[in-house]
Amino acid sequence: MALQKKLQGLVAATITPININLSLISRYVDYLINHQGVKNVFVNGTTGEGLSLSIQERKQLAEEWVTQGKDKLDHVIIHVGSLSLPESKELAKHAAQIGADGISVISPFFFKQVNKDELVAFFRDVASQAPNIPFYYYHIPPITGIKFCAEELLASMKEQIPTFKGVKFSDRDLLDLRQCLQKSEQDNFVFMYGVDEQLLSALVIGANGAVGSTYNYLGKVHNLILEAFASGDLNTAQKYEFCIQEFLGFLISLGFGVPQIKAVMTLFSGIPMGPPRLPLSPVSDDFIVKVKTKLEKLNMCLSGSG
Amino acid sequence: MALQKKLQGLVAATITPININLSLISRYVDYLINHQGVKNVFVNGTTGEGLSLSIQERKQLAEEWVTQGKDKLDHVIIHVGSLSLPESKELAKHAAQIGADGISVISPFFFKQVNKDELVAFFRDVASQAPNIPFYYYHIPPITGIKFCAEELLASMKEQIPTFKGVKFSDRDLLDLRQCLQKSEQDNFVFMYGVDEQLLSALVIGANGAVGSTYNYLGKVHNLILEAFASGDLNTAQKYEFCIQEFLGFLISLGFGVPQIKAVMTLFSGIPMGPPRLPLSPVSDDFIVKVKTKLEKLNMCLSGSG
Amino acid sequence: MALQKKLQGLVAATITPININLSLISRYVDYLINHQGVKNVFVNGTTGEGLSLSIQERKQLAEEWVTQGKDKLDHVIIHVGSLSLPESKELAKHAAQIGADGISVISPFFFKQVNKDELVAFFRDVASQAPNIPFYYYHIPPITGIKFCAEELLASMKEQIPTFKGVKFSDRDLLDLRQCLQKSEQDNFVFMYGVDEQLLSALVIGANGAVGSTYNYLGKVHNLILEAFASGDLNTAQKYEFCIQEFLGFLISLGFGVPQIKAVMTLFSGIPMGPPRLPLSPVSDDFIVKVKTKLEKLNMCLSGSG
Amino acid sequence: MALQKKLQGLVAATITPININLSLISRYVDYLINHQGVKNVFVNGTTGEGLSLSIQERKQLAEEWVTQGKDKLDHVIIHVGSLSLPESKELAKHAAQIGADGISVISPFFFKQVNKDELVAFFRDVASQAPNIPFYYYHIPPITGIKFCAEELLASMKEQIPTFKGVKFSDRDLLDLRQCLQKSEQDNFVFMYGVDEQLLSALVIGANGAVGSTYNYLGKVHNLILEAFASGDLNTAQKYEFCIQEFLGFLISLGFGVPQIKAVMTLFSGIPMGPPRLPLSPVSDDFIVKVKTKLEKLNMCLSGSG
Repeated sequence: MALQKKLQGLVAATITPININLSLISRYVDYLINHQGVKNVFVNGTTGEGLSLSIQERKQLAEEWVTQGKDKLDHVIIHVGSLSLPESKELAKHAAQIGADGISVISPFFFKQVNKDELVAFFRDVASQAPNIPFYYYHIPPITGIKFCAEELLASMKEQIPTFKGVKFSDRDLLDLRQCLQKSEQDNFVFMYGVDEQLLSALVIGANGAVGSTYNYLGKVHNLILEAFASGDLNTAQKYEFCIQEFLGFLISLGFGVPQIKAVMTLFSGIPMGPPRLPLSPVSDDFIVKVKTKLEKLNMCLSGSG
Repeated sequence: MALQKKLQGLVAATITPININLSLISRYVDYLINHQGVKNVFVNGTTGEGLSLSIQERKQLAEEWVTQGKDKLDHVIIHVGSLSLPESKELAKHAAQIGADGISVISPFFFKQVNKDELVAFFRDVASQAPNIPFYYYHIPPITGIKFCAEELLASMKEQIPTFKGVKFSDRDLLDLRQCLQKSEQDNFVFMYGVDEQLLSALVIGANGAVGSTYNYLGKVHNLILEAFASGDLNTAQKYEFCIQEFLGFLISLGFGVPQIKAVMTLFSGIPMGPPRLPLSPVSDDFIVKVKTKLEKLNMCLSGSG
Repeated sequence: MALQKKLQGLVAATITPININLSLISRYVDYLINHQGVKNVFVNGTTGEGLSLSIQERKQLAEEWVTQGKDKLDHVIIHVGSLSLPESKELAKHAAQIGADGISVISPFFFKQVNKDELVAFFRDVASQAPNIPFYYYHIPPITGIKFCAEELLASMKEQIPTFKGVKFSDRDLLDLRQCLQKSEQDNFVFMYGVDEQLLSALVIGANGAVGSTYNYLGKVHNLILEAFASGDLNTAQKYEFCIQEFLGFLISLGFGVPQIKAVMTLFSGIPMGPPRLPLSPVSDDFIVKVKTKLEKLNMCLSGSG
Repeated sequence: MALQKKLQGLVAATITPININLSLISRYVDYLINHQGVKNVFVNGTTGEGLSLSIQERKQLAEEWVTQGKDKLDHVIIHVGSLSLPESKELAKHAAQIGADGISVISPFFFKQVNKDELVAFFRDVASQAPNIPFYYYHIPPITGIKFCAEELLASMKEQIPTFKGVKFSDRDLLDLRQCLQKSEQDNFVFMYGVDEQLLSALVIGANGAVGSTYNYLGKVHNLILEAFASGDLNTAQKYEFCIQEFLGFLISLGFGVPQIKAVMTLFSGIPMGPPRLPLSPVSDDFIVKVKTKLEKLNMCLSGSG
């Protein structure tokens, strides 16, 4: 792990093509690199319908992403979270074996009455199966309903998980994010923000990067934001952020979940992602028509992207 | 399925012994029958930490329960729900192959924005893998956060799932339960109530039976309630119900979840269930002391039980 | 207070006519008595849009109900709850002065982080302004979001509020209700159930009566339930309960709140209640048409009612 | 209203001294101006326990703030929201009569099933009583439970409320805030951010100012943030923001509500605010000790403040 490059910049939360069509992953990798300038991926997460897949399918996807990403992508992080500890451990072990660059785990969320100690013990047991690659905690309380702040878990994770390297922080509580950053100043951790539609607001308090579904198709323009922000050009960063926010606000007003993400990605990339797996529903017929119309209006400001 | 006995009376939601100690199941079966008068079980549900197990573990437990229950138990129902459709289908197929008497499925609950049609399609696909045994919908919105009433799903389940035979109804909305019963008067369905601590309130509006964790150790006294209620002796039914409610109210005041259920079952049955699996926490040291003290006080009224 | 008759049976949660048309109250009283057999009222509660009224309006309504109910109604209970302690105290004092038969107070619900001690202290201060009439705690956590069980507050209310006489229990947690009843066996309290659509389920665990909006227009048939239940005729009680549940289930499927309650009451009684006050919306045009159609179908079973 | 100065910068959400001690307001005004550099106040809001006061008390406080603020403060905005429309209208009329610089209204939140049209109609009716001063919508869904985005109400408020001038935006959904700003580019509205602990994150997407309780005692240092941000010096803005966030994070970890706000303000200003009114609880004894210790550690970075 000593030679591990630090994770930084944008991380695309990958989409799983319908029927687990592995043959598309190679093209997907090239699209991310060539069209979006994105060289990190987060596989089998929420966007990837990871928890809707079988263990076998999750392994197949992980392998294909690692294989296709080799010498092309900087970081292939595999989400190995599961409600089941043995399954999560099995996935972690597998990720390490195939040469993934890191693993991440969501809080098990079936039982809501969970103590901090046992939650971290769960993470520790999973991480122990991949002792040579970074572990990133996947913090997403709006979905899990497990209401601990990331900061409340941080000290314990640092102490008990030798491979702890950071957090995918998918929450709007920016004070919590700030407290994590402040309490990690001496550490080499990354806090990647995961609420795509308000990225700039997280950068300004110190987020190290971003992970989310929109970096699949809005990576290029988000990279412009990161660059502008890093160089102190807040005006330019705002210009792009505001344009993206207008687009994402529009998408959200139409109802924006995994089915819509898949459709938008297909529209941008030409890679046929297809509808989601049950229990999710296909998008309505007019969704893409509306998106296209909106995109035409926003063309100039989103010109950074594909 | 034509010869299938109708499910009725009490169904014990089985507890999974620590380390999946299969050797205890035989004894568990005998305890339920001989000490509690309970001849139906619901395996790998919430109480059984079903979603905390691996697929392989779930299959092992299902097999052992079917094997040990043969010629002893009336109904061994296997909960085969999962966030993942292929896994749920695999478990359903397995349950059918080993000779289970029914399957049950919880709503997949990771994505909360789910439509009724896709939810029922998910159930239909699972049920199709076990086409000769009953399918019971596992309705537990307080845990899943999927807020449909059972009655909203009922017509669609009847229409699309040939093996639909009823609902494990674990919710306090008794009007919803009543509406299900009213709209199923022409059908041969069962609606088993799953909020143990208010069973009598469900019986009085027509619930056909009950499924829950307390029937593991309070089956005998609950059977007295069912008998008294069936024979029109409400006073006796109330007497036992009130006693149980005092006991369960006490347990709930101490914090009552799967860890505590395991400890109480160990106390009553002598079968060593052990602590729960992560992410759940072990019970506190003084829990069982308090329970014992309370039980001594309630001895006479609970004398129906072990 | 020594001579106070005990509150029992049905209590109608009164509806406030549009524009606070006080001239209708006399007719309303007669309708309740003559057509519904209801002789107790709960004024200015949720159904009565009590918190949408000004203090002056609440006083006017309270006075008119006490005046019109004199020698006709058994109990006129005034809801005097408010987010503001001085206003609640003023209303309590007024209710006592005008000769009300009791007061009731909802938990102040603006601040959710409230301790039990301060909550009971709030009630105590209000009750102290009406020291000679009963105080009933109005328990309705689904609306207030103040999540204490009634049983958690009970001991403290008994100890600190000399006039505490019971609870309007508007929650589906029937174990909580049962525990209140069990812990009050030595007291002369009333626990009136407030979830109208599952009344029988509360009676069976010992509820002393019922308070709610449906007793305005379904009082007669509910009285038949109470009578049948009291005489041990559960079958008859169920027959009426099931019919009511079919009707209320239908209403709820159409969206059933205060606006709809006002429209249904107008339909049954002929007393023009009018639309609700802002921020509530008027009912849709076809609501009453649908209700009439349903009522025709249910005519025989609801024949107990007006 | 033509001559009205535009609201900008910081707005202190005023605290109500115990027993409505009006004699402290003069000193309070001077403290805000001289020690905190804050010249705008928001009276009788959440921090001011506005909804815990009687109408008469709210009027007294409004009058005193207008009187004492005359020729000293730039904007005295009176929160006139209430669950009751007639009371809210009465307060609005009063605010206009006494010469307040604006009114603000929280969504009435007792009934959660509220439509957008009726909600805006409620605001419109209130605003119509103060036709010559600005109306600011008080958006705070985490407290009200009324879940509309501000942006969903914006067009309708613009159309129906001639005096609509902006929003006190107390929510973490920064995309919603951004959409409000984007859709108001042609208007002269203000969007004051109300989640104090993440102000910089709102400034970066265009918030016009800030309103909250911490500007009572951290106004000076927040003014340094506003100035640095306005001049393009993000590093300085961050330096102060991070320091404030460490302090507020600490306060929040201790439990931070109105009681704690009152105690901290007393500590900073020397003005004896006293404990809160029921149903809120006094602070624990060691709260202020812990705060003092923390403040000593943060002294240098918070040196901008009193």
